[in-house]
Amino acid sequence: MAAEIVNPPSDTGASQDDFFDPAFALHRGGKMAIQATVPVRDKDDLSLAYTPGVAKVCSAIAEHPELVHDYTWKSQVVAVVTDGSAVLGLGDIGPEASLPVMEGKAILFKQFGGVDAVPIALDCRGVDEIVETVVRLAPSFGGINLEDISAPRCFEIERRLQERVDIPVFHDDQHGTAVVTLAALRNAAKLTGRGLGELRAVISGAGAAGVAIAKILVSAGIGDVALADRKGLVSTDREDLNPAKREIAELTNRTGLTGSLESALAGADVFIGVSGGTVPEAAVASMAPGAFIFAMANPTPEIHPDVAHRYAAVVATGRSDYPNQINNVLAFPGIFAGALQVRASRITEGMKLAASQALADVIADELSPDKVIPSPFDPRVAPAVTAAVAAAARAEGVARR
Amino acid sequence: MAAEIVNPPSDTGASQDDFFDPAFALHRGGKMAIQATVPVRDKDDLSLAYTPGVAKVCSAIAEHPELVHDYTWKSQVVAVVTDGSAVLGLGDIGPEASLPVMEGKAILFKQFGGVDAVPIALDCRGVDEIVETVVRLAPSFGGINLEDISAPRCFEIERRLQERVDIPVFHDDQHGTAVVTLAALRNAAKLTGRGLGELRAVISGAGAAGVAIAKILVSAGIGDVALADRKGLVSTDREDLNPAKREIAELTNRTGLTGSLESALAGADVFIGVSGGTVPEAAVASMAPGAFIFAMANPTPEIHPDVAHRYAAVVATGRSDYPNQINNVLAFPGIFAGALQVRASRITEGMKLAASQALADVIADELSPDKVIPSPFDPRVAPAVTAAVAAAARAEGVARR
Repeated sequence: MAAEIVNPPSDTGASQDDFFDPAFALHRGGKMAIQATVPVRDKDDLSLAYTPGVAKVCSAIAEHPELVHDYTWKSQVVAVVTDGSAVLGLGDIGPEASLPVMEGKAILFKQFGGVDAVPIALDCRGVDEIVETVVRLAPSFGGINLEDISAPRCFEIERRLQERVDIPVFHDDQHGTAVVTLAALRNAAKLTGRGLGELRAVISGAGAAGVAIAKILVSAGIGDVALADRKGLVSTDREDLNPAKREIAELTNRTGLTGSLESALAGADVFIGVSGGTVPEAAVASMAPGAFIFAMANPTPEIHPDVAHRYAAVVATGRSDYPNQINNVLAFPGIFAGALQVRASRITEGMKLAASQALADVIADELSPDKVIPSPFDPRVAPAVTAAVAAAARAEGVARR
Repeated sequence: MAAEIVNPPSDTGASQDDFFDPAFALHRGGKMAIQATVPVRDKDDLSLAYTPGVAKVCSAIAEHPELVHDYTWKSQVVAVVTDGSAVLGLGDIGPEASLPVMEGKAILFKQFGGVDAVPIALDCRGVDEIVETVVRLAPSFGGINLEDISAPRCFEIERRLQERVDIPVFHDDQHGTAVVTLAALRNAAKLTGRGLGELRAVISGAGAAGVAIAKILVSAGIGDVALADRKGLVSTDREDLNPAKREIAELTNRTGLTGSLESALAGADVFIGVSGGTVPEAAVASMAPGAFIFAMANPTPEIHPDVAHRYAAVVATGRSDYPNQINNVLAFPGIFAGALQVRASRITEGMKLAASQALADVIADELSPDKVIPSPFDPRVAPAVTAAVAAAARAEGVARR
């Protein structure tokens, strides 16, 4: 889209230069709209789509509640819910300022998964309030994508919400990232002829993404995982852990490593960065030969790709201008499309693992150090993930058709 | 749209015949979808619409909150909120079963007013819960259209909600109906050369629509209004009135009529039916010569149009197969479009009166007993209402641009 000069509203105090920017031009008026999918041209159309015709459809749903999936958009629409507390790298910017991200997410849902999505930025912060509010909204939606909600509240919100509603609840910052990371790791292992069970991984960051990546790696059978937060390695010895970190301490770090992230990197096979911060080159050099370095902080990877390439067999980042971009858009559209297709009541670990395997399998003959994960624009991705997730939902008994 | 045979899901127990119906065929898969209004074809598009470009827009809104209106869809999208407690003539069918009506409303918003709208059917019933929930949703929307919420809760919900949020809250079952009814009444008076101040009206029904119609008629300067509920005329003598009816008792029935609806019709100039029920022909015959009869119950008007025409100068109904259909779609799309255009913080009585006048004025030379109100498909309607509402919002000091 061509750059366009946009006049800032005169009363904002913002500098004119702030709006000399193609991102502002693109965002003017928002990025999405509602579209009617049935005609409303005349009296006859109106009498079917609205009164009196609509009354029969309402009565049928009142009598047979499952028909809501057939005769409304419920089963094709996801709420993208945030409280604006942990938006991108910007942090706690509140609900209104988070809306451009939520709209962006919504149009990615549509573009990549054919899933309709509605931004819902909530003006409340308590776990109880967020859970209650989303429970009340649930009749209108086929799924709930939680987005940019800060840890550790995000863990409890997701868990409690999923206990209360019969539609999938999925915190993408956790599970989307985890699914794509595991897919890249599977392909890196395949490329270098190693089994996941042989690998020892170190994760920098024990927030939403770090905890979820650790969990899925354990589910997938990786040898061992150690996580580090700002205070160092997460281990059962530590007394300062929140419940989510305590749980993950039990699942990971089997050898009981303590101390710094850097110390754990000595001899490690995999580095996964979801923290920001930087890792000294000496620590990178201490990793095992043929390491995998996934430095996903944006815009500045924890380890610069040039440095990483000196020591690693496979390098991935979160950036689109380097090869192997770990991008959630590879996962969430297909995961929800698959779940909605079979009217799944939740998204299980098995469905996430299936999504990850399908995503990895998209790359077959093309597998190379610079291609362990497909491009977000690879048209094979969403259909493969959708089909795998739908099949896994059936296999796991959470599908309703 | 051609009729289509739709197979019912086999496990519903619903009869095949229920789905041999064009309304079901039309509703399959719902009536609406999300549309991206910006391209997401490649990496460059993605880097503007999503990360990293979106971060600048978020930061700008965090710093200048009013920019949310410029750079998101907030100012063009309305939440259509219900609890499913008073849906059409069906009553309390719950949130899921109400969704086809809410989707219908949403596509009417789009088709007639160019306003995006999202159905939000809430799984809660308490006034406090509904108010709190909608307050929390408000950051994502430019307006709240309350729909099909039962009286008297709807009055308190609307009032308390409007006190809490800085976007318009509008219960269409009340005010949409009131605006269109007043427009028809203005034209009926004009046609017959009478002033509103000369007219005495009797309203059958003291629910959401009846109360709102009474209020707007009083605001517009009609001579006198009497309302009747199932127990008879609403007057300050009665001890059984809820707060909404008590308030309306103070504003109406200046002569202190008591007793039955029928007794009040003797000599009355206007009958407005929003109740269902039927009015005996003898009572109709007792009205003043040249009466106006607006019998809006659907599908069965309180007074059959053939009977009404024996005694009345102007007859209107809620049905599309008779002349003079009192249809809310003549009001709500333009009212919200006008309010959103100037970023109004609320919809005032003045804005409703302006909408009503603009709607009446659409019919000028064409004014006749069979045309006191335009057709819902008259393309002049929404622009006229939009412009009048925007101007009134500015005049009343509730516009923010």
